[in-house]
Amino acid sequence: MHEILIEEKILARNNEIAAANRQALSERGIYAVNLVSSPGAGKTSLIESMTRHLKDQSISFAVVEGDLEGDFDAKRVEKHGVPALQITTGRACHLDAHLIEHSLPWVLKHEGLKLLIIENVGNMVCPAEYDLGEDSMITVMSTAEGDDKPLKYPAIFAASEVLVINKTDLAPYTDFDIRKARENALKVNPYLKIFEASCRTGDGVKEFAAYIAKLAITKRSLKNT
Amino acid sequence: MHEILIEEKILARNNEIAAANRQALSERGIYAVNLVSSPGAGKTSLIESMTRHLKDQSISFAVVEGDLEGDFDAKRVEKHGVPALQITTGRACHLDAHLIEHSLPWVLKHEGLKLLIIENVGNMVCPAEYDLGEDSMITVMSTAEGDDKPLKYPAIFAASEVLVINKTDLAPYTDFDIRKARENALKVNPYLKIFEASCRTGDGVKEFAAYIAKLAITKRSLKNT
Repeated sequence: MHEILIEEKILARNNEIAAANRQALSERGIYAVNLVSSPGAGKTSLIESMTRHLKDQSISFAVVEGDLEGDFDAKRVEKHGVPALQITTGRACHLDAHLIEHSLPWVLKHEGLKLLIIENVGNMVCPAEYDLGEDSMITVMSTAEGDDKPLKYPAIFAASEVLVINKTDLAPYTDFDIRKARENALKVNPYLKIFEASCRTGDGVKEFAAYIAKLAITKRSLKNT
Repeated sequence: MHEILIEEKILARNNEIAAANRQALSERGIYAVNLVSSPGAGKTSLIESMTRHLKDQSISFAVVEGDLEGDFDAKRVEKHGVPALQITTGRACHLDAHLIEHSLPWVLKHEGLKLLIIENVGNMVCPAEYDLGEDSMITVMSTAEGDDKPLKYPAIFAASEVLVINKTDLAPYTDFDIRKARENALKVNPYLKIFEASCRTGDGVKEFAAYIAKLAITKRSLKNT
């Protein structure tokens, strides 16, 4: 019972900080997404692939990267001329609102920012429980992972607004059934907006980027009315 | 500080139970492996593919499956005539020694068992810290995941005795560099024994199964001397 009580307190405190983060980002008209997936599903590649499309739509954005160690992902993103901040979590298997709170001074110093992409630690379990203050959580799953993932890791699919089925170029070489993956995901969360994408071929990335751009523009315009 | 103290206490208690599990399994001459990976790296497929080879070597084995929900994996394994017990962890992102302790009566009721394969929850972070009482931890990573994974999730590679680079059949369609993945893994843990396998083509599975069989036979013979 003690363990559960402590966990509830930690989550309650996390939610308070997340609400403050959300408020701070909203006041500046910045749309925030929390990108989650298992390790290696292609979150960083997706960000890299989206860059050109977001720039085409004049969406100025920054990236906060969460990893246990190293700054590999931040460096990859920066190569595309996108500002990126690396957070290392050490032994923690997810980002939390407190870590994002500490990144906000860096985020907010960028003038005219319309979008903040937070790339969480690769983990299909714990990030589902930790609100960061984002506007939407986006789960990425790859066709190399198995189409039963939504049924085996339901919490993260239930907590997400958007699902990107990534690496569609690999589907012909795996047993992954995209139709079945969609069905399984919608069983867990009937409100999921689902995209299919391949960062290698570029298929579907433009459509996904356009969707995110639209959300960011809508938030900005709501703020200005 | 409180949080850390509580975590230390939880881990200390876990280690005590793990030691008791190890003792109970050793008394029966059962070799135990803890199979860890990110979701969808192919742990269950690897178990399925190994079955024939382990049977060829007269290795009687059972499987304990860890998942958040459902019994998909236990059912897959049982189809091959292998006894399988499903543990569902609910919101917990890893198995722990206590959960395995509860599965031991089921494990030990199987006469002549030489090998216990524990398939952990798909997660590259937390399972590294929770000893289950196994003889060796085996990390599975797939060529669809990125060859930098050992550097980004070092704890799990450091805690493992064996690494299986799985889905080698997909490598030609990805940017995954097997040589680089090996280098990165050995940077984190120079003692890692590394196998390459493809459950689709069967390449390398026999060699990996033979290695595990040998460990199980050695443990059994040590017990009998």
